[in-house]
Amino acid sequence: MKSKFQHVALVGKYQITTSSTSGANSRAALLAVAHFLDDQGCDVSLEKDTALNMGLTDYPALSVAQIGHECDLGLVVGGDGTMLGIGRQMAPYGVPLIGINQGRLGFITDVPYDSFATSLAQMLGGAYVEDHRSLINARVLRDGHCVYEATAMNDVVVNRGAASGMVELRVEVDGHFVANQRADGLIIATPTGSTAYALSSGGPLIHPSIPGWVMVPIAPHTLSNRPIVLANSTKIAIEIVSGRDASASFDTQSLASLMHGDRIEVTRSRHHVRFLHPQGWSYFDTLREKLHWNEGVTAT
Amino acid sequence: MKSKFQHVALVGKYQITTSSTSGANSRAALLAVAHFLDDQGCDVSLEKDTALNMGLTDYPALSVAQIGHECDLGLVVGGDGTMLGIGRQMAPYGVPLIGINQGRLGFITDVPYDSFATSLAQMLGGAYVEDHRSLINARVLRDGHCVYEATAMNDVVVNRGAASGMVELRVEVDGHFVANQRADGLIIATPTGSTAYALSSGGPLIHPSIPGWVMVPIAPHTLSNRPIVLANSTKIAIEIVSGRDASASFDTQSLASLMHGDRIEVTRSRHHVRFLHPQGWSYFDTLREKLHWNEGVTAT
Amino acid sequence: MKSKFQHVALVGKYQITTSSTSGANSRAALLAVAHFLDDQGCDVSLEKDTALNMGLTDYPALSVAQIGHECDLGLVVGGDGTMLGIGRQMAPYGVPLIGINQGRLGFITDVPYDSFATSLAQMLGGAYVEDHRSLINARVLRDGHCVYEATAMNDVVVNRGAASGMVELRVEVDGHFVANQRADGLIIATPTGSTAYALSSGGPLIHPSIPGWVMVPIAPHTLSNRPIVLANSTKIAIEIVSGRDASASFDTQSLASLMHGDRIEVTRSRHHVRFLHPQGWSYFDTLREKLHWNEGVTAT
Amino acid sequence: MKSKFQHVALVGKYQITTSSTSGANSRAALLAVAHFLDDQGCDVSLEKDTALNMGLTDYPALSVAQIGHECDLGLVVGGDGTMLGIGRQMAPYGVPLIGINQGRLGFITDVPYDSFATSLAQMLGGAYVEDHRSLINARVLRDGHCVYEATAMNDVVVNRGAASGMVELRVEVDGHFVANQRADGLIIATPTGSTAYALSSGGPLIHPSIPGWVMVPIAPHTLSNRPIVLANSTKIAIEIVSGRDASASFDTQSLASLMHGDRIEVTRSRHHVRFLHPQGWSYFDTLREKLHWNEGVTAT
Repeated sequence: MKSKFQHVALVGKYQITTSSTSGANSRAALLAVAHFLDDQGCDVSLEKDTALNMGLTDYPALSVAQIGHECDLGLVVGGDGTMLGIGRQMAPYGVPLIGINQGRLGFITDVPYDSFATSLAQMLGGAYVEDHRSLINARVLRDGHCVYEATAMNDVVVNRGAASGMVELRVEVDGHFVANQRADGLIIATPTGSTAYALSSGGPLIHPSIPGWVMVPIAPHTLSNRPIVLANSTKIAIEIVSGRDASASFDTQSLASLMHGDRIEVTRSRHHVRFLHPQGWSYFDTLREKLHWNEGVTAT
Repeated sequence: MKSKFQHVALVGKYQITTSSTSGANSRAALLAVAHFLDDQGCDVSLEKDTALNMGLTDYPALSVAQIGHECDLGLVVGGDGTMLGIGRQMAPYGVPLIGINQGRLGFITDVPYDSFATSLAQMLGGAYVEDHRSLINARVLRDGHCVYEATAMNDVVVNRGAASGMVELRVEVDGHFVANQRADGLIIATPTGSTAYALSSGGPLIHPSIPGWVMVPIAPHTLSNRPIVLANSTKIAIEIVSGRDASASFDTQSLASLMHGDRIEVTRSRHHVRFLHPQGWSYFDTLREKLHWNEGVTAT
Repeated sequence: MKSKFQHVALVGKYQITTSSTSGANSRAALLAVAHFLDDQGCDVSLEKDTALNMGLTDYPALSVAQIGHECDLGLVVGGDGTMLGIGRQMAPYGVPLIGINQGRLGFITDVPYDSFATSLAQMLGGAYVEDHRSLINARVLRDGHCVYEATAMNDVVVNRGAASGMVELRVEVDGHFVANQRADGLIIATPTGSTAYALSSGGPLIHPSIPGWVMVPIAPHTLSNRPIVLANSTKIAIEIVSGRDASASFDTQSLASLMHGDRIEVTRSRHHVRFLHPQGWSYFDTLREKLHWNEGVTAT
Repeated sequence: MKSKFQHVALVGKYQITTSSTSGANSRAALLAVAHFLDDQGCDVSLEKDTALNMGLTDYPALSVAQIGHECDLGLVVGGDGTMLGIGRQMAPYGVPLIGINQGRLGFITDVPYDSFATSLAQMLGGAYVEDHRSLINARVLRDGHCVYEATAMNDVVVNRGAASGMVELRVEVDGHFVANQRADGLIIATPTGSTAYALSSGGPLIHPSIPGWVMVPIAPHTLSNRPIVLANSTKIAIEIVSGRDASASFDTQSLASLMHGDRIEVTRSRHHVRFLHPQGWSYFDTLREKLHWNEGVTAT
């Protein structure tokens, strides 16, 4: 069976230099996947930083932009963090992504390395489930000027300073006043991010098909300040009212030293991320396994 | 200014015979609103049970079906419960509803009786915000046959029997297995219902514009069984796996003595409820007032 | 090494006739433990219902009262439920209990059957940790008369009727008004019960050494009605204010059809349960294993 | 009636220079209370910083230590924060404290300024309820040496750095391993502190008579890492395992830049704070009013 995807880019842990042992494992894993793709008749390229980090020179090394323009599939060998990073960058180009995990199942890296050949053979043949994930576009405004702009696949978090007390945040949705929140901070999470920090802070799970964000207060002063699910077609604005050294994070990128009056504006990005999963994949199977449902985490 | 609405139906507390005092108040309130509508040049009718309960014979009494076919506006004088009941019944006819509360602000009855004349004058003139609420269609299947069908505006709740232990429920979404839940019960709530029982049980607030339901487990055995927001375009099926005397409730209607193997299937109704709010109304203002945000329900 | 305990009573699943297979397993397990105790020079008796259920005639069968007066150790082979039942009954006699679990670790049955010989040899020799658990004494008063009295090792639960709405409960502590709670119900749990139903309903874990109960509202109408830890030297009174068909449960015993004005009074029992654990046992090890801490039940 | 207390120290907002208006109010309030005490035949002194801040020279100004040795009552005019600060300092001397609030009711400042004369007249005459609050003694150890020591009346909080991810904390109780917690941080709160930050983070309320602390994880990675109530006779140790820029706070004092391997050890202080409340005072009345119970913060 011929591959539906002609030119495949391989991405590994490209940001952090891994330790020698796990680095060697990752390198061997990447090469095994590359050879497999060769055998399937695909053109194989490596993401540039991955090639550099791993010292791999057997395949052409492409920048993210080149991958975006030239490849019709991205194959990520790593964990959810790697997948999030490259997903954010690939969104504008519409290149679909498959995630292969070497360790335990990820929320979005769901092809186990041990059986990648079987899974990939089928997926390259066209047997896959496509799953689109929305992205947040966030802008930080100071005195009416945009001083920072970022894209987030998991969440935007506004946080109090480390050694200071609560932060007070004024929240508006499409210009409507929502509330002044006094809390440790506030999370705006996508459905993808609803299983991450937002979940730890008491937020609900949000199915990826929901066109919404969840806004979750972190340790709110007012007990009835509960998580709220908002349409992602709205503009959410968060203004720093009081609190020293507040900061904002956009997935892993962050901006420190926010000032009173700074506004973080959150809208839906016009791009989305395309994930491909093996045929038969179900979001609920992943939830059930990751959250240890049906294993009885309680008593008597 | 001429009213945009020609024939208006008035609805009061039609189900429960009220005590003599509050009954008298309600009667006087209904009449005052009726007279006001007269003055605005509207044709005024009364919902049949309301007329009967209040002993009002000054205006024609119409059945719900007649109101649905003949009226172009329903005016509810009462609380959220009355509004929910008539809303469910009016949905198939598409008649919009305005809610006037005599006591404190409701989540969906937001015109205070004390200032109804000012508010209504503007709203009849066309100055209003329209707000659509989705409805749940629920069916109970036994041995493959539908033994009960109901519409819910707030929620569908499956509950354990009173003196028995947990119930075990198998949940599927569009045929995909989600989890076997062992709990006191399970709530499927609409955005409208997200401020009711679901909120008490730990669920998030859901903005009415979100095309989804929230599924909230009640006192779940497994601590990671968290509330989950699901698209309302799916079919959710809940099967009674074990537990004695389980029951199902659909808003206030309820069905006792469910049997093992019974399935409750939840889909979106093809109808929705149309609420009209005064110009300038914001869902967030109601939330803020009802949930006492910005009043500091915590310490030190 | 001579056993510190001369006369040991063996208790199995005495209340429910087990299925033939697991019954056979339980029977074989009981006999294996009995033979081992023989070998250690102990006098061995069987709890009467256990002997009857298992069809065991090799050892004397004693009633609970006889065990209480004649034995100096109880050995329970079963799960936490069996241990709770016999613990409640043994408390007045002060007979210490050891719990052997055949399946997975229990909160209070912590000697694995697979290694019982090694564990018991050491414990009979005096190498054990003693752990005392407080008990609730509960009385139901109607028109000032006690109509029901029960002892609970886990919790006392007041619940709404199955098909009815919330129950309203007036809570007093030592005659001081605490609150009128509108909720699905209210749990008063011991530290032992804090890992059971109270935990599912949002309560904290309570270390067994804390001289207190936790009162946990179930799905409370008022969001700031949070769990509260109260001294167990107080008298807590719960009065049914409104709600149809409320019921009260005391561990597994229950009393239906409570009436308005009925009062449930909760005090500490003057008895406590004595558990013996293997040397080196730590409450925290059990918590960690049972609650799957350090296994990462979250994401990304 | 003669005052049971001969020498009374007055304490106001001594740490922060108040704005001119509220400062003037506070000054007038302090003087009014001082004059009243004069009239009751008490010797009146002012806490030194209070006198300095307010520019009050009419009464002798005493240091905290002098108050501790010479006075038999402290009268605090301010909010809960002022009371916490002076309470911590007065504990070693055993001087009882009365809290007068000028604004809204505090959790521990429960005499309204508007009726202070009536309340104080009775309390000075001996009609009061005495209420003892336990204190935390905390030490920070680095390489086995104590590098910081503090007393806390509300809580000890270990927190992640502002712009970094989770912190990982190893928790031990009396040398028993409890868990490795990955979270935003960890709170150890006294019963007094259970209504503050711990409550916002999901902890239970703890009655002041409970000899325990509650340990509350902040946004824990593992969903079953629930708040746990521990005996205050134990030693709790928290070790920084990983995470950059972690910090520790002791009420309002804080210590930044904790290093891996640093240990925070928490024990009960041998001192406690003595609060006096008006006759008839009940802890539950305060809770009910502060937490707006019985006001219905939910829907439909």
